[in-house]
Amino acid sequence: MKKNLLAACLLLAVASTAEAQVVYHDASVYPLLGKATEATLTRYERLPASYEQISRKPLWDLGRNSAGLAVRFRSNSTQIVARWTVRSNFGMNHMTATGVKGLDLYCLQEGKWHFAGSGRPQGRENRSTLVRNMETGEREYLLFLSLYDGVTKLEIGVDSLSTLEQPAVDLPVREKPLVFYGTSILQGGCATRPGMAHTNILERWFNRECINLGFSGNALLDLEIAELMAGVPDPSMFILDFVPNATVEQMRERAVQFYDILRAKHPHTPILFVEDPRFPHARFDQKIALEIKEKNEEVAAVFETLKKRGEKNIYFLSSKDMLGSDGEATVDGVHLTDLGFMRYAELLYPLIKKRAQW
Amino acid sequence: MKKNLLAACLLLAVASTAEAQVVYHDASVYPLLGKATEATLTRYERLPASYEQISRKPLWDLGRNSAGLAVRFRSNSTQIVARWTVRSNFGMNHMTATGVKGLDLYCLQEGKWHFAGSGRPQGRENRSTLVRNMETGEREYLLFLSLYDGVTKLEIGVDSLSTLEQPAVDLPVREKPLVFYGTSILQGGCATRPGMAHTNILERWFNRECINLGFSGNALLDLEIAELMAGVPDPSMFILDFVPNATVEQMRERAVQFYDILRAKHPHTPILFVEDPRFPHARFDQKIALEIKEKNEEVAAVFETLKKRGEKNIYFLSSKDMLGSDGEATVDGVHLTDLGFMRYAELLYPLIKKRAQW
Repeated sequence: MKKNLLAACLLLAVASTAEAQVVYHDASVYPLLGKATEATLTRYERLPASYEQISRKPLWDLGRNSAGLAVRFRSNSTQIVARWTVRSNFGMNHMTATGVKGLDLYCLQEGKWHFAGSGRPQGRENRSTLVRNMETGEREYLLFLSLYDGVTKLEIGVDSLSTLEQPAVDLPVREKPLVFYGTSILQGGCATRPGMAHTNILERWFNRECINLGFSGNALLDLEIAELMAGVPDPSMFILDFVPNATVEQMRERAVQFYDILRAKHPHTPILFVEDPRFPHARFDQKIALEIKEKNEEVAAVFETLKKRGEKNIYFLSSKDMLGSDGEATVDGVHLTDLGFMRYAELLYPLIKKRAQW
Repeated sequence: MKKNLLAACLLLAVASTAEAQVVYHDASVYPLLGKATEATLTRYERLPASYEQISRKPLWDLGRNSAGLAVRFRSNSTQIVARWTVRSNFGMNHMTATGVKGLDLYCLQEGKWHFAGSGRPQGRENRSTLVRNMETGEREYLLFLSLYDGVTKLEIGVDSLSTLEQPAVDLPVREKPLVFYGTSILQGGCATRPGMAHTNILERWFNRECINLGFSGNALLDLEIAELMAGVPDPSMFILDFVPNATVEQMRERAVQFYDILRAKHPHTPILFVEDPRFPHARFDQKIALEIKEKNEEVAAVFETLKKRGEKNIYFLSSKDMLGSDGEATVDGVHLTDLGFMRYAELLYPLIKKRAQW
C-alpha cells in the first residue's frame, strides 16, 4: 500500500514537473504600446469604449483588431511561450494566419530590437513557443499583437524558476509618439507576421512608440478618428495615409476638416499627406491607373488648399518610389508584402527623421 | 405568342452574352516551363510517373506540388481569367493561400516580365480574374503555378472575341536551364504568391528556364533526384541547396554520391553548394545555432573532399549575406518571406551570371 502511494506520488511529481516547466502570467499588467488613449476597458483594442456608440460599425469592429499594439516585458527565462485567444478567428486567402492573428516577438540587444520568433496560430485558442533554447539571462522583450484580429486574452509563459517582470529600459520611447491614420495597408495587410507592418518596423527603427490607426476598407476620413488622434497629448508627427480608400468626393468633402481637427489641438505638429501608391497592376489595369491619377490629383489639391491658406509644418509624400520600381512589392497588386513594407518603411524613415518634432 | 418567343430569345441572348464574355481554354496545350523531364502523364507535376514506384511517399507527394512550373501563352484579351483545381486543398498558418495554391501572372514588356496579377484561391475549385481593364493588344504571358499544392486542371479565360495562342517569343529561354535542388525554402516556403519563390524570380531576371526540385521537409539527398537532375540534357548550372534538411549523417553518407551522379553525366557543368542559412532566431536559440554550425562544417567538408579529389567547376556559397543582416527576412525564423526571397535572389544572381554555362 505504502509502495503504491509512493509510486503514485512519484508519477504525479513527474507529470507536474513536465507541466510546471512553463508558468503562465496574464500579460495585462505589462505596458501596452500603440494605443491612442489610455482606455483600459478596451485593453487590446485601438478605440476607446465610447466609440462603440459613435463610429460606424465596420470601423468600430476594425478598431478591435490589435494592429500596432505591443506588450513590453522582461524575463530571464530560457524560453518565451504565449497563450492567446483571438476575437474572430478571422482568415484571408492573401495573408498568412501568422500575420492576421499571430504574435511576433522581438528582443532588445545593445539598444536594437531583433526578431526572436513568431507565434503561429492554431485557431481561436492558441499556444506557441516563440523562442526556446536560450542562455539564461535578463532580456527585454517587445511582443507585437495580431494585425487583423483582436486579442481578447494574452498570457506569457516562462520557465517555472525564472522571472517575468516590468521592463527595466524605457524603449521604445513613449513620449512624442508617431500617429498614423490609414487603410488596410497601414493596418498591416499583408505582412507575414505582425512585426512587419511598417508602423511596427518604424517603431523599432526609431525606438519610438507608433500608433497605428489603420482600418481595412475604411479610413474614409471619419472625423471621430481625427478627434481621437488630436487627443494624443504629445504627437511628434501625424502621417495621413487615407488615399487608397477615401474617394475623391470624400477627400473633397472632409480632408480639410479632418486636418483642421488635428491642427486645432496641435498648432505646430508636422502633418504628412501620403499619395495613393502606384499599385503595380496599374501598369496593365487602365481603370486602376485612372483612379490612382484622380485620387492623387485630389490629395494634391487638398494640400495646395492648405498651403495657400498659409498652413505651416505640412508635408506631401509622393508615392513614386514607395513600392520600388520592380512591381514585386505586393501580394495582389494592392496589399504590401514584407518586401513592400520594408521599402515603404525605408521611404518614410528619413522623412520622419527629418520632420518629426521630438 | 411570337412576342413571347422574341422576348425569350432576347433574354437568352443577354444571358449568354454575360456568360460568353469570358471563354475558357484548357491550358494543357501551352508550353509548360520548369519540368526536369518532358513526361506528359504528370502534366503539372515535377517527377515522372515512374517515380511513384521509386521515391519515398512524402517525396513523391511533394513532387506533385507545382512549384516552379509556369505556363506560357499569348493573348490580345482585355482580361485574363483562370479556373483551376488543386489536388489537396492544402493550407499552412505561416504561408498565404495565394502562395500555397494560388496562381501568379506576369506579362512581357520590352523583354522584361512584369507582375500583372495574382490568382487568390477559394478552395479546391477556383476562379480568379488575374488582370482586367487592359487595352486591347497582343501580349505574352507567364503564369506561375501553385507552390505547395498540385494543379490538376487549369483553364485560361479570355474575352470571347479575343485570341489565346502559342507564345510568339521564346522567352524565358528554354535551352540550358538552371537546375535547383533543395528544401521547403527552395519550394517557395513562404512566398506570398508563386512568382516570389526565388527560382521564379531568377527565371524572370535571367529570362531563362529554372527547374525547381525543392521538397518541403525532404531534400535528404535521395539519389533518384540526382538521377532526374542528371537527365536534364543541357543544364547550365546545378544549385544544391539541401543543407537545411539533410542531416550531418546524410551528408556524410550521400552528398558525394549525389554529386557523382550529376558529374558522371555532365563533366563540365558548374555545381554550386549552398550553406545552411543563418536563421535569424539562431541569434537566441542556441540549439539551432549549433545545428547550423555543424551542418555548415559538414557541407564545407564535403566541398573540400571534392576539391582535394581535383573536381573542377564546383563552387561554394556562404550564407553569411543570404538573408541580409537585419533578421527580418523570414516568417518564422526559417522560411523566407518575399523580402527573404528577393535578398536570396539578389545574392544568387551575380554568382549564377558569372558561372552558368550558357
